[in-house]
Amino acid sequence: MPAIFTQHPFMSQPALDACDEQAMVKAMLAFELALAEVQEASGAVPAGVSQQIRDQLEKATFSVDALAEGIASGGNVAIPFVKQGRSLLPNELKRYWHQGATSQDVVDSALMLLLTPRLAALNDLLLRCRAAALALMSAHGDTVMVGRTLMQQALPITFGVKVAHWAIGLEQSRRRLMDVALPVQFGGAVGVHSGWGHLGLDWMDALAERLGLASPVLPWHTDRYPIHALSTALDAVAGAAEKIALDVSLLTQTEVGEVAEPSAPGMGESSSMPHKRNPVRSALIKGAARLVHGHTSVVMSAAAQPLERGLGEWHAEWAPLIESALLVEGALEQVAVLLEGLDVNAENMARNLTATGGGIMAEPVARLLAPALGTEKAKAVSADAAETARREARAYADVLSSHPDVKDVIGADALRDACDPALYLGSSKEQMKRARAWLMSD
Amino acid sequence: MPAIFTQHPFMSQPALDACDEQAMVKAMLAFELALAEVQEASGAVPAGVSQQIRDQLEKATFSVDALAEGIASGGNVAIPFVKQGRSLLPNELKRYWHQGATSQDVVDSALMLLLTPRLAALNDLLLRCRAAALALMSAHGDTVMVGRTLMQQALPITFGVKVAHWAIGLEQSRRRLMDVALPVQFGGAVGVHSGWGHLGLDWMDALAERLGLASPVLPWHTDRYPIHALSTALDAVAGAAEKIALDVSLLTQTEVGEVAEPSAPGMGESSSMPHKRNPVRSALIKGAARLVHGHTSVVMSAAAQPLERGLGEWHAEWAPLIESALLVEGALEQVAVLLEGLDVNAENMARNLTATGGGIMAEPVARLLAPALGTEKAKAVSADAAETARREARAYADVLSSHPDVKDVIGADALRDACDPALYLGSSKEQMKRARAWLMSD
Amino acid sequence: MPAIFTQHPFMSQPALDACDEQAMVKAMLAFELALAEVQEASGAVPAGVSQQIRDQLEKATFSVDALAEGIASGGNVAIPFVKQGRSLLPNELKRYWHQGATSQDVVDSALMLLLTPRLAALNDLLLRCRAAALALMSAHGDTVMVGRTLMQQALPITFGVKVAHWAIGLEQSRRRLMDVALPVQFGGAVGVHSGWGHLGLDWMDALAERLGLASPVLPWHTDRYPIHALSTALDAVAGAAEKIALDVSLLTQTEVGEVAEPSAPGMGESSSMPHKRNPVRSALIKGAARLVHGHTSVVMSAAAQPLERGLGEWHAEWAPLIESALLVEGALEQVAVLLEGLDVNAENMARNLTATGGGIMAEPVARLLAPALGTEKAKAVSADAAETARREARAYADVLSSHPDVKDVIGADALRDACDPALYLGSSKEQMKRARAWLMSD
Amino acid sequence: MPAIFTQHPFMSQPALDACDEQAMVKAMLAFELALAEVQEASGAVPAGVSQQIRDQLEKATFSVDALAEGIASGGNVAIPFVKQGRSLLPNELKRYWHQGATSQDVVDSALMLLLTPRLAALNDLLLRCRAAALALMSAHGDTVMVGRTLMQQALPITFGVKVAHWAIGLEQSRRRLMDVALPVQFGGAVGVHSGWGHLGLDWMDALAERLGLASPVLPWHTDRYPIHALSTALDAVAGAAEKIALDVSLLTQTEVGEVAEPSAPGMGESSSMPHKRNPVRSALIKGAARLVHGHTSVVMSAAAQPLERGLGEWHAEWAPLIESALLVEGALEQVAVLLEGLDVNAENMARNLTATGGGIMAEPVARLLAPALGTEKAKAVSADAAETARREARAYADVLSSHPDVKDVIGADALRDACDPALYLGSSKEQMKRARAWLMSD
Repeated sequence: MPAIFTQHPFMSQPALDACDEQAMVKAMLAFELALAEVQEASGAVPAGVSQQIRDQLEKATFSVDALAEGIASGGNVAIPFVKQGRSLLPNELKRYWHQGATSQDVVDSALMLLLTPRLAALNDLLLRCRAAALALMSAHGDTVMVGRTLMQQALPITFGVKVAHWAIGLEQSRRRLMDVALPVQFGGAVGVHSGWGHLGLDWMDALAERLGLASPVLPWHTDRYPIHALSTALDAVAGAAEKIALDVSLLTQTEVGEVAEPSAPGMGESSSMPHKRNPVRSALIKGAARLVHGHTSVVMSAAAQPLERGLGEWHAEWAPLIESALLVEGALEQVAVLLEGLDVNAENMARNLTATGGGIMAEPVARLLAPALGTEKAKAVSADAAETARREARAYADVLSSHPDVKDVIGADALRDACDPALYLGSSKEQMKRARAWLMSD
Repeated sequence: MPAIFTQHPFMSQPALDACDEQAMVKAMLAFELALAEVQEASGAVPAGVSQQIRDQLEKATFSVDALAEGIASGGNVAIPFVKQGRSLLPNELKRYWHQGATSQDVVDSALMLLLTPRLAALNDLLLRCRAAALALMSAHGDTVMVGRTLMQQALPITFGVKVAHWAIGLEQSRRRLMDVALPVQFGGAVGVHSGWGHLGLDWMDALAERLGLASPVLPWHTDRYPIHALSTALDAVAGAAEKIALDVSLLTQTEVGEVAEPSAPGMGESSSMPHKRNPVRSALIKGAARLVHGHTSVVMSAAAQPLERGLGEWHAEWAPLIESALLVEGALEQVAVLLEGLDVNAENMARNLTATGGGIMAEPVARLLAPALGTEKAKAVSADAAETARREARAYADVLSSHPDVKDVIGADALRDACDPALYLGSSKEQMKRARAWLMSD
Repeated sequence: MPAIFTQHPFMSQPALDACDEQAMVKAMLAFELALAEVQEASGAVPAGVSQQIRDQLEKATFSVDALAEGIASGGNVAIPFVKQGRSLLPNELKRYWHQGATSQDVVDSALMLLLTPRLAALNDLLLRCRAAALALMSAHGDTVMVGRTLMQQALPITFGVKVAHWAIGLEQSRRRLMDVALPVQFGGAVGVHSGWGHLGLDWMDALAERLGLASPVLPWHTDRYPIHALSTALDAVAGAAEKIALDVSLLTQTEVGEVAEPSAPGMGESSSMPHKRNPVRSALIKGAARLVHGHTSVVMSAAAQPLERGLGEWHAEWAPLIESALLVEGALEQVAVLLEGLDVNAENMARNLTATGGGIMAEPVARLLAPALGTEKAKAVSADAAETARREARAYADVLSSHPDVKDVIGADALRDACDPALYLGSSKEQMKRARAWLMSD
Repeated sequence: MPAIFTQHPFMSQPALDACDEQAMVKAMLAFELALAEVQEASGAVPAGVSQQIRDQLEKATFSVDALAEGIASGGNVAIPFVKQGRSLLPNELKRYWHQGATSQDVVDSALMLLLTPRLAALNDLLLRCRAAALALMSAHGDTVMVGRTLMQQALPITFGVKVAHWAIGLEQSRRRLMDVALPVQFGGAVGVHSGWGHLGLDWMDALAERLGLASPVLPWHTDRYPIHALSTALDAVAGAAEKIALDVSLLTQTEVGEVAEPSAPGMGESSSMPHKRNPVRSALIKGAARLVHGHTSVVMSAAAQPLERGLGEWHAEWAPLIESALLVEGALEQVAVLLEGLDVNAENMARNLTATGGGIMAEPVARLLAPALGTEKAKAVSADAAETARREARAYADVLSSHPDVKDVIGADALRDACDPALYLGSSKEQMKRARAWLMSD
C-alpha cells in the first residue's frame, strides 16, 4: 500500500519494526498465556496446563494472512487469533484457552503491551532532546537575537532563552506522558467477569502485575478514559515538537538565516534546484504533528461508546492510537537530531538585530532621553533617529549622538549602551537558570 | 506494522493491492515518461529519446527499499525516485529525464493517477448500492414501520421510503464525487515553468490529456483546492454510508429486530458468546467513516500552504488523502453487501408499531374524534385510550370502540382505519416515486 | 447573533452570566491592578500609586462598545482596554499603568481568572454527579439488566455496575481536570521582561500569588502547554458526560424503556406529536460534547505558535477555550439532573432479559449440561431450547426441563438457577464495592 | 458572554447584525406564514386565514428571553417559538398555525433563510477580492520577486503570478460555494408529511419557491448532505483566504519586507512596542480560518444522524454552520481590504533576489556555460561564483565575468542576461493571461 511512501517517512523505523503483525500476535499471545497462568495460580485451571499451552503456542506459527482475513468477518483481530490459537491446541487444552475473556480484552491489552516499549522509547528520546537543549542553552546563554511577535521584530532575547522555552514545552509534555497509565483490560463478555464472580477482579490485578501494566479501578471496556488520556498526551508532545520545527523553519528562511538544520549527506536536496538545502526535518516533524492532531480528534470523538461495547467507535481507535505513537516517535527522532546538531549562526542574529536601524531599541533609548527631553519629545527623537539610521544604513547610536537635541545632553557611552541589544535582555539569564533547575528536577 | 490489523479491516483489499508501492512507482514513471513524450512532441527533446527512456525504465526494477530510505532525507518519494531513475539511464539520456519538473509535480500527479481508478471503483460501488436500494424500495414500498425521532417512536413510515432517503444520501455524494476533477500537476521548481517560458502551459495541457487527468487553470502547487474538493467529497460519501450503518445498527438491536445484516459464514461471531450475531459490517462502516472524518480534518487544516511549496502541510496530505479513498471504498463494499442482502423483518416492524398501545396513532384518532367531541376532549380521550391499550395489552381500536364517549359516536370501521398505521403513511408513496425518478436521472 | 439560539441551549446560564463582557473587563483590570501593586511592593512604582490607580479605575465605566471596536484594529481586546484605561488616568499615573506588560499577558491572565471559578463550578457539578451516581449504585446494586455489546444483548449485568462505570468515567476526568494548573502569564513584549531584568520573574511569582493563579516555570507566551492541558482535560469530561447521555438515549428507546429522563414541565415536548417525551437532556449533552470536540481540535492544531507570539494561532484559542468550559458546565448541569432524577424501570429491564427466550443464558446452561451431555451436545441443546423458548414465548427453564435429553439428567432447581440472570452477575457486586471505595478516596 | 471579545473580532459585524435573535424569529415566522399561504392556495386552509395569521403575528413582539428559556426544555428554538406564536393567535386561527410541520422543518428552513443573504454577501466579497486581485495582477505582471519552496529561496517569479494563484484559489471556492443549494426543509414529524398524503411534496415545492430556497428531492431531515456541502464549501473559502494571509504574514516579516498590510489609524499597534506595525488583518483571517476548520469537523462528524431525527447530532450543527458563515464573511472583509490596499515593495523584492549572491540564478548560468565547459564544470563554476558573490557582496554577473574559466568564453551581455531574474520568469506572463481569462469567464 502507499502508506510506505505516504506515512512512513514520518514514523520511526525501529518503532514500526517493533509494532509489526508478528509483534501484535506476540502481544495477544502474551495476554492469553498470562491469563492461563493467573487462572492456574487461583485454581481455575489445573496445574501445569498454562505451561502446556505455552509449549504448544509459543513456537507455533500464526498465519498473519489468516488473521487479516478473519478480521473482516469478526470485526477485530482477536476473533481469528483466538480461533487459530484454539485450533493449534490439543482437545484437552482447548477449554482453558481464552477462558473468561472477550475479544476486547485481548485487543485492548495487546495494544497496551505494544505501547509500553514505545512510551519508554518516547521517554528516552525526550530525555535526549532535553539534554541537547540544555547543551544549547549553555552554549547560547549570551547569544543575542531579536524576539519576534506576530512575526515582526520586537525586542532582543537570547537564543538560549528561546531554547529554554522549547525545552520546557517538551519536558512538560514528557512528564504528562509518563504519568499516563497503560492499564490491562480484562472484563469478559460484558465487563463483569460473567461466570467467574469475585475471581474476576483478582485475575485482573494479577494479570496487570504479570504483564507489567497498570491495574484499572474496573474493566474499562466502554470507559475510554485511558485511551483519551494517552492520545491527548501524545498530542501534547506532538505540539511541543511542532513548535520547535515551526521556529526552526522560520529562522532558517534565506533572508533570516539564524539557524540551519544539521547537514547530512543527501538531506534536504531539491530534485530541481542544486543550490537548495531544504529544512526537511522540520517538514517531517510538522507533517507528523498534523497527522497526530487528526488522529487525536478521531479518538476524542470516539470517547463515548455505547453500552458495554463500541460499535465502530472502539474500532476507530486502533489505527489513530498506534499511529500517533509511531508518528510522535518519528518526530522526536528528528527533533533530537535537530537539537543535537543545530547550526546556530550568531553573526546573522547580530545582523538581523540591526535590520530596523534601531527601531527595536527605540524604547530603551526613549527611556534614557525622557528625563532630559520629556517623554513625548524623547519618543519622537528616538523614532526619527531609527528611521534615519535605517534609511542611511548608519549605526543607531551614531545617528543619535549627532542629533542636535541629543548630542550635548547624553554622553556617547550612555547612548551606545541604550542602543545595545545585549544590554537589554530582561530576565533572559534568570529564566535560563530557573529553566535549568526545573528541567533537571525530574 | 500493526496497520494491517488496525486499519486494513476498514479498507478495500483490491484497492489496497492497486495502491501498493509498485503502483506508486508505476504512476511516477508514467508521469515522467509522458513528460518526455510531450517534450519530444514539442521539440524540446530529440526524436526517439522518450522511447529510449521508456525502453530503459519500463522494465527496470526500482528498489522500493531504497526509495523508502530516500524519503527520509529528501522529504518525499519523488526525490529518490528521480535519482534512481536517472542512475538507470545511460549518460546521454540523463539530461532529458525529469526535465523542467519538480518533485511536487511527480508526487501530486502520481497520486492523481493512483486515485483515478479508485474514483471509478467508487462510482461502480455507488451505482451498485443505488441498484440495491432501488430493489429494496420496490420490495418494501408497502412495508409499514414506525418512524423514530430522537430515537423515540413517532409516527408510521414505510421501510421503502427510509431506503429512498438512504439512496438519495449516497447518490448526492456520488454525483458530487464524480464532479471532482483530478488535475495533473506540472509547474516546475516554483510553479512557473522556469526556463521553459510559454512551453510550460502547453506541456501541462498535453500531459493532462496523455495521462487522462484534468488540466487545471494553472499549476496548483500551493493552491490545494483540488485536494480539498476531493477530500471533502470523499467525506460526504463516508457520511452517507455511515448514516445507513447507523440506522442498521439501531434497527438490528435485539429489542427492535427490524432488520439484520446478511448472514455469512463466520460473520459477526463473538469470541465469547455463541448466541450472538454482531452487526460487524455496520461496525466496520462506522469505524471507517470516523477515520475518514479525521483524515479530512487534516486535509482542511493543511489547505493554506506557504508561498510556493508547503513545509509539512503538503506532506501531511498524502496519507489522509489516499487512506480516505481506500476507507471509503472499503465502507462501500460493506454497504453494497448490506443493501443487497439485508434481512428485513416486516413482522417485527408490525409488532413494534403496536408497542405504544396506540400512542403513535393518537394524533389521527384525535383528528377523527374532534368534530364530535371537540378538540380538547378528543385529544384527552385518544391519549387515555392509548395508555389503557398499552397497560392492558389490548388493541387500540378495541379500547377506543368500547370507550363510552366514543362507541356510539364513531363507527368501528372508521376507528379501525384511524388506528391503522398503514393508512397513515403521508407522502411515502409519492416520495418513493419522486426518489426513483431522481435516482435514475443520471 | 443567533448564538443565543444555536449555542446557548448547550451552555450553562450562570456560567454565561459570569463570563460576560464586564467580567472580562474586570479580569483584565484585576491583572493590571495586581501588577501595579506587585511593582509598588518591589519599589518600581512609588508608594500609594497602585491604590490611586485602583481608586480611579475600579469604579470607572469601561465602554464595551469601544473595546469591541478596538479589537478589530488591535487584534485583541487588551489593546483597546489598556488604551481606555490609560485615558481614564490622570497624567501622573499613566506611566505606571500596564508597565512592563504586553497584551498577551493581559488576555491570557484574564482568561485564566475567568476560568478559575468555572473550574470550581465544574468540580462542584462533578461531585454532585458523583454523589448522585453513588446513590443510584446503592439503589440498584441488585437491579439486573442485560449487558449489550455492539448493541446486541449479551449477558446480564446490574444497573448498579453500569452506573459505577459511568461514575468512574466522570471521576477520572474530574481528577485530571483538577490537576490542571491555571498559570498567570507575565513576560512583557517578548517574554523576557525587557527592561526589568531579574525583577520580571519575581513579579510573575508575586502576581500569581496575588491573583490566586499558578506560577509557571517561565512565561508561556508561545508555549501553549497550559491551554492544551486544560482544553483536553475539558474534552475528557465532555466525553464522560457524552457516554452517559449515549447510554441513556439508547436505554430510553421506546422498545427498550429501561430508563427515562426525569420528567419536568415542558421537558421533551414535540412540536407535532403530543405523545412523545423526547430525551432532550441527552440531546443537549451529546450536542455540547460534539461542539467541545471541535473546539479541542482547534486548540490542539494551534499548539505550535511561531517565535515569540502567535499570528492567528493564539487568537484562535480564545473562543474554543472559553466556550468549551461553558459547554462542559452546561452538559454537567444536565448530567447532574439526569443522575439525580433518572427514572429506572426495573420491570422493563426484567422483561428485556427474556427477549431472546434464553439465548443470553445459553452459556451458563451449556456449562451446566456439559458434564452430563458432553460439551458439544450441551451447546446444541441449550441453543435449541433458547430458540424454542423465544418462538413459543415460554420460559427457558421450562423448555429445558421438558427437553428429553435434559429432564432426567438435571434437576429443575439447578436448571432454574442456571437460567436465572440474577445468579449470573459475575463480579458486579465486587465491582460496585471497589468502585465505591475508589470514588470516595478523593 | 466573552464571545464578543473572543470570537467577534473574526466575524463580520454587518453579518452578525443580520443574524441576531430577531432575525431568527423573523425567519421562522417567514417559514410559518409561507406554509399557511401555500396550504391556503391548495385549499387546506380557508381563504383569508393566512393573511389573518400574518396580520396577527407580523407586528407582534416575540419575547426573545422566553424563547431562550424554552430552548432548554424543548431542545430547539422552534418549540417555544411555535408555542408563543400559537398563544398570540385567536382560537379560531390556532389550528392552522404550524399545520403539518415539525420543529426541524422550522429550524432548518429558517437557517437556510438566514444564510441566503450571507451567501450573497460572500459572493459580493469574493467578487470584490477578485477585482482587487485582477488590479494587482495588472500592476505587478513585471514585478520580479523570488519564489520560495519549503520557505527557502528557489527561483524567480513575479508578484503578479503569485496574486493570480491567490485569485484562482478564491475563485474556485467561490464557484463551488455558489453551486451549493440552500433547500427548504418540510417533511412533518417523521419526514413523510403524515396526514397530508400527496399534498406534502407539492407544499414543499411551493414553499421553496415562495421562500426563494431550493426544492430538495425529498425532505432531508436526517440526510444532512445539504449541510455538509455548504459547510465544506465554506471551509474551502476559508482555506483560500488563509493561504493569502499566510503568504502576506511571511512576506511582511521584518527581514523580508516585500509587502505590508494597508496602514490605517490604529491598525496593528502593539500595547508595548511603539515601533511595531503588526499584520493584524492576517492574524484575524488566520484565526477565523482555524475556527472554521474546527466547525467543519463538527459538521462532518454529525453527518450521520439516527433514523428520522438526530439526537444531539442535529443540534450540534447549528452553531458551527452559522458561525462558519459569519467567520468566513469576516475573513473575506479583511482579505478584500488587504488586496485592495496591499503595500507592495518592489525594491525589497529586488533586494531579496540578490540575497544568495546568485545562488538562485546558478541554474540558468550553468545552462549557459555547459556547452563551453561541460555540464559538470559549468555547475561547479556557477556555484563557486555564487558563493564568492554572496561572501564578497558583489554582483553575480561581475564575479562570473572575471572568472578565469569564463571571461574569455562567454560575453558579458550573455552573462548578465543569464543572471537576470527578470529574464527567467518561465510562464509567468502566460499564466497571468490564462488566469485572467479564466477569472473573468464567470
